[in-house]
Amino acid sequence: MEVSSVLHMNGGFGDNSYASNSTIQRKVISMTKTITEEAVTGIYGNKFLKTICIADLGCSSGPNTLFVVTEVMKMVDKIRRSFGRQSSPEFQIYLNDLPGNDFNSIFRSLPRVQEELREEMGSEFGPCFFTGVPGSFYKRLFPTRSLHFVHSSYSLMWLSQVPKGVEMNKENIYLASTSPSSVIRAYYEQFQKDFSMFLKCRSEEVVNGGRMVLTILGRKSDDPTSKECCYIWDLLAKALKQMVYEGLIEQEKLYSFGIPQYTPSPFEVKAEVEKEGSFAIDRLEASEINWAACSNKFNLPHSFNDDGYNVAKCMRSVAEPLLIDHFGESIMDKLFLKYGEILSHCMSKEETKVINVTISMTKKE
Amino acid sequence: MEVSSVLHMNGGFGDNSYASNSTIQRKVISMTKTITEEAVTGIYGNKFLKTICIADLGCSSGPNTLFVVTEVMKMVDKIRRSFGRQSSPEFQIYLNDLPGNDFNSIFRSLPRVQEELREEMGSEFGPCFFTGVPGSFYKRLFPTRSLHFVHSSYSLMWLSQVPKGVEMNKENIYLASTSPSSVIRAYYEQFQKDFSMFLKCRSEEVVNGGRMVLTILGRKSDDPTSKECCYIWDLLAKALKQMVYEGLIEQEKLYSFGIPQYTPSPFEVKAEVEKEGSFAIDRLEASEINWAACSNKFNLPHSFNDDGYNVAKCMRSVAEPLLIDHFGESIMDKLFLKYGEILSHCMSKEETKVINVTISMTKKE
Repeated sequence: MEVSSVLHMNGGFGDNSYASNSTIQRKVISMTKTITEEAVTGIYGNKFLKTICIADLGCSSGPNTLFVVTEVMKMVDKIRRSFGRQSSPEFQIYLNDLPGNDFNSIFRSLPRVQEELREEMGSEFGPCFFTGVPGSFYKRLFPTRSLHFVHSSYSLMWLSQVPKGVEMNKENIYLASTSPSSVIRAYYEQFQKDFSMFLKCRSEEVVNGGRMVLTILGRKSDDPTSKECCYIWDLLAKALKQMVYEGLIEQEKLYSFGIPQYTPSPFEVKAEVEKEGSFAIDRLEASEINWAACSNKFNLPHSFNDDGYNVAKCMRSVAEPLLIDHFGESIMDKLFLKYGEILSHCMSKEETKVINVTISMTKKE
Repeated sequence: MEVSSVLHMNGGFGDNSYASNSTIQRKVISMTKTITEEAVTGIYGNKFLKTICIADLGCSSGPNTLFVVTEVMKMVDKIRRSFGRQSSPEFQIYLNDLPGNDFNSIFRSLPRVQEELREEMGSEFGPCFFTGVPGSFYKRLFPTRSLHFVHSSYSLMWLSQVPKGVEMNKENIYLASTSPSSVIRAYYEQFQKDFSMFLKCRSEEVVNGGRMVLTILGRKSDDPTSKECCYIWDLLAKALKQMVYEGLIEQEKLYSFGIPQYTPSPFEVKAEVEKEGSFAIDRLEASEINWAACSNKFNLPHSFNDDGYNVAKCMRSVAEPLLIDHFGESIMDKLFLKYGEILSHCMSKEETKVINVTISMTKKE
């Protein structure tokens, strides 16, 4: 599997689209707002740049795509007003994701968003220039010293490739308590390789004094097979295993599948940043959010207003392209129905959470 | 009709897509290569910028989209080599079109194009950063003083709106010998308004000494109703009229339709540039190309290898979204079949050409 050509959130605005199932990601963005605000103040508050270049890496396609960058622009504008400055900076907004992302949907929503921004913020605000940047953030994406602020939420846990040797992981599709140590090492090494490459690329692109705020699906525990990060995939593996028993999937097919993801601990994130050396860490935090936050109660018919079902839809909008690429499209409805049942059952019995690791950094002079 | 939300070339790669029917546009780009080369030398040849920012405005979606910008990058690289310079500049490429353009197709073709570029140009070349910029070029699209080279081919004849009073133009869908003078004036004034706004926006975005090369579908004659620019639309109007006779379209529906286009003369282009005042004209030329250049003989089954049919397909890939918006989708196949027949008939009797006006300019210090 060529991850960069397969991985993308489900496009469009349908029932299984990422756009309709990204409530949890939005909540996470709101939770990290204070950290973002602090970083934005650090950039704009003492320099009053004429043009501010802001990149959102792994922007996906949905209501969150423009939510982050408009929040950042509003923060800048608030600072501008608080200092009594008349003229607004120009905003150059770079929205990045892999080439398979549904940029058309983003672009078609822009005229309305820009109109709303103008109405809300007044004529002094902006102008804002939006651009789409297709490509992997594990490569260079922007000219040297061209970015002031980089944001990325719920993207950097995705690896550039499935680590070698997933067959050894048998029926697990991610790290699990039964994963052999060679597999655990392969996952961690792939994270180290990818994240350090990310830092190296950004160190060339971010201006001195520029900031980055990254939120990564992670864990608090030192153990990379800890339930807090692996459980949600473990339950998907369970659904897949049931389908193997039912003869709907071949066992070898399941054995050769692995999710290209790694959920790092704050310590692991810190270690890579320090090793790379270009960025000074301002903040490093772990926060948690309940799976039930996936619920988007307003959008769903009453009969489906069930947390397990909602989490399954969330995960479907995120992981379906990877699963289709490996298992084919025909089993998807059945798979996610099973997964929803399994999730409902677990969520009724225990409290289920995901952990977010947020790091805020400044590019060293 | 909100032109900016309706106008776009047909997306995808199907039989009626712009991607499969843009041979003439490619030929025009090749014809203006010398002018582009001269402009690129003017930018890079004496400054050796570290980052060159290149914008293609109205890039559409198809084989030409990346053709222009890769040609420009190759020109820069040739100059670099001829001066014996080791290090390549970075290329920041902005691909602009209206938000309805099929950016997804462009972005999905990028990994392959970038790979081919690396192979052809060697490891010294680049890096190249591609971005998509959705929006009307009759508004600001880029930060102040951020562009070195602006290219636009076959886009600036599109107006931001259908001029007021098209009903007076009756069964004509563009200017024609029977157009009343008020309609002719309305079309010309809309062109003046739009093109001067284009120049004003670009004057803020292009660095001093930066260049623009624009090719516009135009005319040589002073008469805006001249056959050389109006005939091709006149024949489409003829096909529409036949459908009115057959009761497939209501007469009022035809009367209220107008193509948001104006094909200016070199003199009219020059007048606007001089009035706006920010750019010095380096070159201003009119060239002509035969309608038969629409033929893409390799891609068509033999039985359809007919020039009229090919021109109809070319025009369909360009004008269909506008026509669907006004007349509905159901009549399109019939309309373009009729149009193809009419075109075949005319092209067998007379030589039919389109005129291109190309202007090359430098932003004044």
